[in-house]
Amino acid sequence: MAQEKKLVEQITSMSEDFAQWYTDVVVKADLIAYSSVKGCMIIKPDGYAIWENIQHELDRRFKETGVQNVYMPMFIPESLLQVEKDHVEGFAPEVAWVTQGGLNPLQERLCVRPTSETLFCDFYKDIIHSHRDLPKVYNQWCSVVRWEKETRPFLRSREFLWQEGHTAHATAEEAEERTIQMLNLYADFCEEVLAMPVVRGQKTEKEKFSGAEATYTIEALMHDGKALQSGTSHNFGTNFSKPFNIQYTDKNNQLQYVHQTSWGMTTRLIGAIIMVHGDDSGLVLPPRVAPTQVMVIPIQQKKEGVLEKAAEICGRLGKVSRAKLDDSDKSPGWKFSECEMRGIPLRVELGPKDIEANKCVLVRRDTREKIEVSLDEVESKVAQLLEQIQQEMFERAKAHRDSHIWDAHNYAEFTEIANNKPGFIRAMWCGDQACEDKIKEDLAVTSRCMPFTDQEQISDVCACCGKPAKKLVYWGKAY
Amino acid sequence: MAQEKKLVEQITSMSEDFAQWYTDVVVKADLIAYSSVKGCMIIKPDGYAIWENIQHELDRRFKETGVQNVYMPMFIPESLLQVEKDHVEGFAPEVAWVTQGGLNPLQERLCVRPTSETLFCDFYKDIIHSHRDLPKVYNQWCSVVRWEKETRPFLRSREFLWQEGHTAHATAEEAEERTIQMLNLYADFCEEVLAMPVVRGQKTEKEKFSGAEATYTIEALMHDGKALQSGTSHNFGTNFSKPFNIQYTDKNNQLQYVHQTSWGMTTRLIGAIIMVHGDDSGLVLPPRVAPTQVMVIPIQQKKEGVLEKAAEICGRLGKVSRAKLDDSDKSPGWKFSECEMRGIPLRVELGPKDIEANKCVLVRRDTREKIEVSLDEVESKVAQLLEQIQQEMFERAKAHRDSHIWDAHNYAEFTEIANNKPGFIRAMWCGDQACEDKIKEDLAVTSRCMPFTDQEQISDVCACCGKPAKKLVYWGKAY
Repeated sequence: MAQEKKLVEQITSMSEDFAQWYTDVVVKADLIAYSSVKGCMIIKPDGYAIWENIQHELDRRFKETGVQNVYMPMFIPESLLQVEKDHVEGFAPEVAWVTQGGLNPLQERLCVRPTSETLFCDFYKDIIHSHRDLPKVYNQWCSVVRWEKETRPFLRSREFLWQEGHTAHATAEEAEERTIQMLNLYADFCEEVLAMPVVRGQKTEKEKFSGAEATYTIEALMHDGKALQSGTSHNFGTNFSKPFNIQYTDKNNQLQYVHQTSWGMTTRLIGAIIMVHGDDSGLVLPPRVAPTQVMVIPIQQKKEGVLEKAAEICGRLGKVSRAKLDDSDKSPGWKFSECEMRGIPLRVELGPKDIEANKCVLVRRDTREKIEVSLDEVESKVAQLLEQIQQEMFERAKAHRDSHIWDAHNYAEFTEIANNKPGFIRAMWCGDQACEDKIKEDLAVTSRCMPFTDQEQISDVCACCGKPAKKLVYWGKAY
Repeated sequence: MAQEKKLVEQITSMSEDFAQWYTDVVVKADLIAYSSVKGCMIIKPDGYAIWENIQHELDRRFKETGVQNVYMPMFIPESLLQVEKDHVEGFAPEVAWVTQGGLNPLQERLCVRPTSETLFCDFYKDIIHSHRDLPKVYNQWCSVVRWEKETRPFLRSREFLWQEGHTAHATAEEAEERTIQMLNLYADFCEEVLAMPVVRGQKTEKEKFSGAEATYTIEALMHDGKALQSGTSHNFGTNFSKPFNIQYTDKNNQLQYVHQTSWGMTTRLIGAIIMVHGDDSGLVLPPRVAPTQVMVIPIQQKKEGVLEKAAEICGRLGKVSRAKLDDSDKSPGWKFSECEMRGIPLRVELGPKDIEANKCVLVRRDTREKIEVSLDEVESKVAQLLEQIQQEMFERAKAHRDSHIWDAHNYAEFTEIANNKPGFIRAMWCGDQACEDKIKEDLAVTSRCMPFTDQEQISDVCACCGKPAKKLVYWGKAY
């Protein structure tokens, strides 16, 4: 028991210091290590395996919609980055510059890609000629670099892993349709696989991507009531195709500019999983994304027949889940704590008495509920429980999110909520950026999105300035 | 027919100019595009899909041996690169340097990883303490940068994709075992999946990796008789663990240095596939690595029922293979040529008369053989043919390789072969680097490996200097 305590004691409690709790979990659950490169992290096997599951499932969903994967160079010549004005203004201040190749200084410096719009445009202008060449629906999985001043594992690091989709279409309608399609794909993925409810909506002008005509976003609520932007999808219209001169001849033999989109999700999602589902004992992983779904832990494993039976059960469970056996020489109590810290959805406890009674004990990570089951039906029970855990984790996260949405009808209410009630603030907005600026300045709250659904008019005046307002906005403190 | 000719005419014939043939195929088969970053390529969907198949199969084989994936930063601080003397000498002249992050110059410049031994060592020294922490068998999939002066798509580019495995072990024996295990895994993969026979062996001191105690390699023979190093596995012994101070306490509580290995395969393999199997009509892909294995091409597709039947057949073939239907409005002849250029192993021709006779024609890409089959048994026939093509492609490549291995007993023979007979030269070597240097200087031939098997003594003197020699070496002109 001393050992068990020790493991849990290594992490700060959420209520005491949420930020420290997060950092503790990230390290103690063995997801990352800090590296000797400031602001860059090492993603350890348990962290990377979560990313592999995310990749696998997202990639499958992408391909079902006709996405093709490619790989673009990691370097962007400075002159190429500068072609689209808003884009370079948005990114140039935070890129890493390569100035020397081998023993010689470069004639033109290259930035390490912070995002690849410019490279895709440069490519598309060469390969798109006719309406027959459209649409192009390309994606790449890679790492990108943004020279952030303050960094936090998964949430904001100088290098991170992501996918970036870049498409080109004949018409504005088709581009808009793809932009929304990918946002919905992201939202469904978050809800179905990560058990994380999201609000779908559009960013304001102030918050949109550098160079986009419209940016759509999914926003999730973390356990501490802060918002996390979890995926974005941008419609560029012809903002890039004009300066890059990406034109095609349409069916009437007229030259037209293509309409473009881009959309991305990152390793930040791992941070979201931690902050939506974790607790004071560590990580809690939704089964669908958990690298190990079931850990079989033998009790009194030195007694004859115990390890053999545990291995047999693990083998059987391996057919319905990602199951592992912990046959290390640590104490069962220590193994339980480790399982909890690592967020493994189900553990199976199996000792000599259980074997004699032809049963075992299943323990849920999310609720800690203990369930005795006959060994004869252990596979079906485990499969059913994993499904149930997945559903209930989503329901709980949704209930938490829904109970942390507050309506503000005027600035006094807005201020009171911002200062005292963690969560999303729903409030009407006049559309003037001055109000966004004031709210950010006064309360450190930003507009998260103008939701797609949920467009009820909770008031007819701006919660900030009192002028007439037609737009409902979700506001929040954000990571 | 005019169109068909045009497509093939776009590529130079192999016999006329092999290098130009290679470049033509790479571009015309739509594998890559050149980018605005000199020496870096864009991997297009058809090229990237081959890499995805390679990745998928290699990763599966890695994990079966206990490999875990991680992700390390892409930057290496200059001071870290310099810790191991041979290593920095080998790589420093060809790395790209980041000297500015955001708007500020960096205090210490960072190189973009050319390989990650130093990062893994820096990581391992922090996480390895006891014999219980060993072995560590980590791998990462990423891109690396080497500032090459002359570049060729897939074979040598400034940025390329690869996997790099890095392991740490308690004993020298275990490290050597892992080094050989991975080399054999690579060799089996090349032979079983890429249908490419390889010679397994050890590099000489001159040719080994910077910092390694021993480098093992697999060497393949391209169609023009040049060798291609296709995968390497290095045993570092304690060469890195000593300068990086990676120590563990053994079971007797004594401090010991770990023994390390690393091993890698790259997108260069795609170049190998092209140069081993391709012909004057373009790419020829082994079925196991082909993104599309079967292309169904309707003849007279505007006639009633043809497209529907073709789609039905494609759907049925999709259950036993990666099948696609080409229902574009190009002519069948043009589609045939495109299929050949892209190396698709089998095409299915299906017209109104075939449908009436309940049959179709299968055409093999490798032999161009046409096979009429009943539509009732098309699935089983296609599955069986794909297997057969895979096997026969390997057999043909092996026969070609074996008929291009020449024995040289003295320098006159060696010179005569090097000047007139493309292929591997087998010759005895005294072990003196001066002979390697002379052979390279005189004949542009390098030692490829000292083979594991095949250790017959074809002579007892060095083919270069005539002194006593015990080592058999495969020599060749290499990419």
